[in-house]
Amino acid sequence: MILQGPEFKKHALVLVGLPARGKTFVARKIARYLSWLGYRTRTFNVGEYRRSIAGARQPAAFFDPGNAEQRELRERIAMRALDDLVSFLVDGGDVAIYDATNTERSRRAAIYERCQALDIKVVFVESICEDEAVVEANVRENKARSPDYQGVSPDEAVRDFRERIAYYAETYEPVDDEDKSYVKLIDVGRKVVVNRMQGYLGARLMFFLMNVHPARRKIWLTRHGESRFNPERRIGGDPELTERGREYSESLAAFFGSRAPEHMVIWTSTLRRALQTAEPLGPSAVARRNLDEIDAGICDSLSYEEIHERLPEEFRARSLDKFRYRYPRGESYIDVINRLEPVIVDLERQRSPVLVVSHNAVIRALYAYLMGRPQEETPHVPVPLHTVIELTPTAYGYEERRYELDPQLDSEYALSRSVGPPPVRRS
Amino acid sequence: MILQGPEFKKHALVLVGLPARGKTFVARKIARYLSWLGYRTRTFNVGEYRRSIAGARQPAAFFDPGNAEQRELRERIAMRALDDLVSFLVDGGDVAIYDATNTERSRRAAIYERCQALDIKVVFVESICEDEAVVEANVRENKARSPDYQGVSPDEAVRDFRERIAYYAETYEPVDDEDKSYVKLIDVGRKVVVNRMQGYLGARLMFFLMNVHPARRKIWLTRHGESRFNPERRIGGDPELTERGREYSESLAAFFGSRAPEHMVIWTSTLRRALQTAEPLGPSAVARRNLDEIDAGICDSLSYEEIHERLPEEFRARSLDKFRYRYPRGESYIDVINRLEPVIVDLERQRSPVLVVSHNAVIRALYAYLMGRPQEETPHVPVPLHTVIELTPTAYGYEERRYELDPQLDSEYALSRSVGPPPVRRS
Repeated sequence: MILQGPEFKKHALVLVGLPARGKTFVARKIARYLSWLGYRTRTFNVGEYRRSIAGARQPAAFFDPGNAEQRELRERIAMRALDDLVSFLVDGGDVAIYDATNTERSRRAAIYERCQALDIKVVFVESICEDEAVVEANVRENKARSPDYQGVSPDEAVRDFRERIAYYAETYEPVDDEDKSYVKLIDVGRKVVVNRMQGYLGARLMFFLMNVHPARRKIWLTRHGESRFNPERRIGGDPELTERGREYSESLAAFFGSRAPEHMVIWTSTLRRALQTAEPLGPSAVARRNLDEIDAGICDSLSYEEIHERLPEEFRARSLDKFRYRYPRGESYIDVINRLEPVIVDLERQRSPVLVVSHNAVIRALYAYLMGRPQEETPHVPVPLHTVIELTPTAYGYEERRYELDPQLDSEYALSRSVGPPPVRRS
Repeated sequence: MILQGPEFKKHALVLVGLPARGKTFVARKIARYLSWLGYRTRTFNVGEYRRSIAGARQPAAFFDPGNAEQRELRERIAMRALDDLVSFLVDGGDVAIYDATNTERSRRAAIYERCQALDIKVVFVESICEDEAVVEANVRENKARSPDYQGVSPDEAVRDFRERIAYYAETYEPVDDEDKSYVKLIDVGRKVVVNRMQGYLGARLMFFLMNVHPARRKIWLTRHGESRFNPERRIGGDPELTERGREYSESLAAFFGSRAPEHMVIWTSTLRRALQTAEPLGPSAVARRNLDEIDAGICDSLSYEEIHERLPEEFRARSLDKFRYRYPRGESYIDVINRLEPVIVDLERQRSPVLVVSHNAVIRALYAYLMGRPQEETPHVPVPLHTVIELTPTAYGYEERRYELDPQLDSEYALSRSVGPPPVRRS
């Protein structure tokens, strides 16, 4: 696991950049990724502190660096957020993200010194956008709708926000301290500059950041169709689909208009029930071993009742901590998350829509990442059989819609977990 | 597997940089890494073409850009290497590495156009060294001993090589085409600039390159001590060590001076036989799941003879292609290599000596990477029980030494493979 080893240092990731350069986009991506991997991560957004301390509605002039009084107030607000950030790390946090402009060298030096004294590793993450059209779109789509401009007309908001950017630009000093750790993200994904990032967390993070982009495409998640093991409540194995499962595979293809669109990326596990589910979608599906179901080790192919009877200790241990429990000779949810990490990076990288046909525990883990659910909730995400989960990207996350393609399927049964309480059968 | 998918494009990785900037170090690291992952990779070193065409002994003046005749000869040599590179890719290669200075824009443009016309993706990999002491050391240690200076005194060789560098410096134009894919490696590992590298191969490669460094430290590989399964010729499972296996664990600790040195990194698998083997070395060992033995699926815990009897088809399939064969519900060597990839990156990243205590198939895969063995040889690397493999880094690879810590152990038995021909027992 990534957190192991005495070499782990608490990190403060300090965003840098003019307004509307995608800092919050980057901050949220990082936070979601690191939380999912098990790092206790929190984001400190100075804009939110400003709104709560000074009030949301401030004219551009509030950001005029020539206005000493406002400047001092803004300084105090930023330091308040920094206090909280430091407390979070000192009190057991692993990674804190400081989401603010931090465009002045003096501000960055103050943050650096404060963290340095507490043995917190600082990484500056500068977001630069050289494409004016992207900045313009960001201002129109996100900034003009922010709480800062409630009740203000979009055109007026855009005008005011441009003025705010201009004030920041007056005193903007790009990061150039070659003795410090920093990353520059230029035109999100086009160009990346990485300085002094030898640590494992840093290298991982860079790999991730090189692959994220703000292009919007849908993602669909589904479990395989009903397998021969499902009605018997057996877990694992490599069973084929039942007749009903085959019908689901046809419904799934029909859902996508009888065949997958040319540009759609389809990933399945290497297990028969997933391969057969994707079959009617055409030949483009790619089978990936790390999408295989959680390995149940010695419990593989047993039914829930058999595990309860024959391995009561295991049964009990699992029900006490389903997230951390590792099947003897098999996997835990944590193991699954770790092996899914490359899938997540690859998923971020894709610019085409993606359909994943996999298994209960795996879909749960992918879903938890995409929807930013706390790690420990992962084993409890409901992922019914014969249901397509459609995720449509929004500014910073996804909007979810679920399609039940087999409405006759008993909903308790559809939800049946790998190993969980026996479903309540309706008589 | 990485090669899957229609999106894979043949790549030419074109090195750029003054002499003695570590280009060949980088080229070899990349070649070893990509070959190990299964890409058909080959390096084309223009220096070698020059030596074979124009002769090894050329004075620095040969590299004088003002000398039109020599310049034309050097141009022809470079194009000869490029011809071979292109043929290699057209004839089924995946990745070609062009190891030359390529310091002039016009040369790079010629390479780019040639590849572009054949739908080969070009990535420039520029190696920059801003630390004069590192360049000086590289010249003294590697260049002055190269075939170019056979029979020349070291001081004279260094003087001449400096002159050669000066000639290249006259016409050096750093890479700055923002519309092309490039990577700049500055002071190997300190700073990396990555431009337009969205592809999966590119991102992987960057992650790898961010972690490699030329610092030299030893690596030791060993299998666990004899387990209860070994004498029974059973594979897999999670058996404990035998008495003799325990003795090996003590000998291993004695080998390192009774306890692991403070700064030594120790990785084991999560299986009992590996954990017990590392136990006497002290508490610093870190258990990593991806160091677990190849998963033998339905053959787990069976003996070689039992597999032969009960699953003759599997037995036969495996003996026909031990590298690609995947145990039903288990793994192939290819699967093992894929799951070891993060271990390799982490191994490259370490600056301390590293000891890996693991299993037959896993040690073979790690060994094949470190020693640059062809992928298909992996299942046949001899890794005897109770033997420490010591790898000492040289300029571009490792020197190997093996220590048999249990000389009484029958050598055929020590070599016994997970599943292979039954050992010839001496009577």
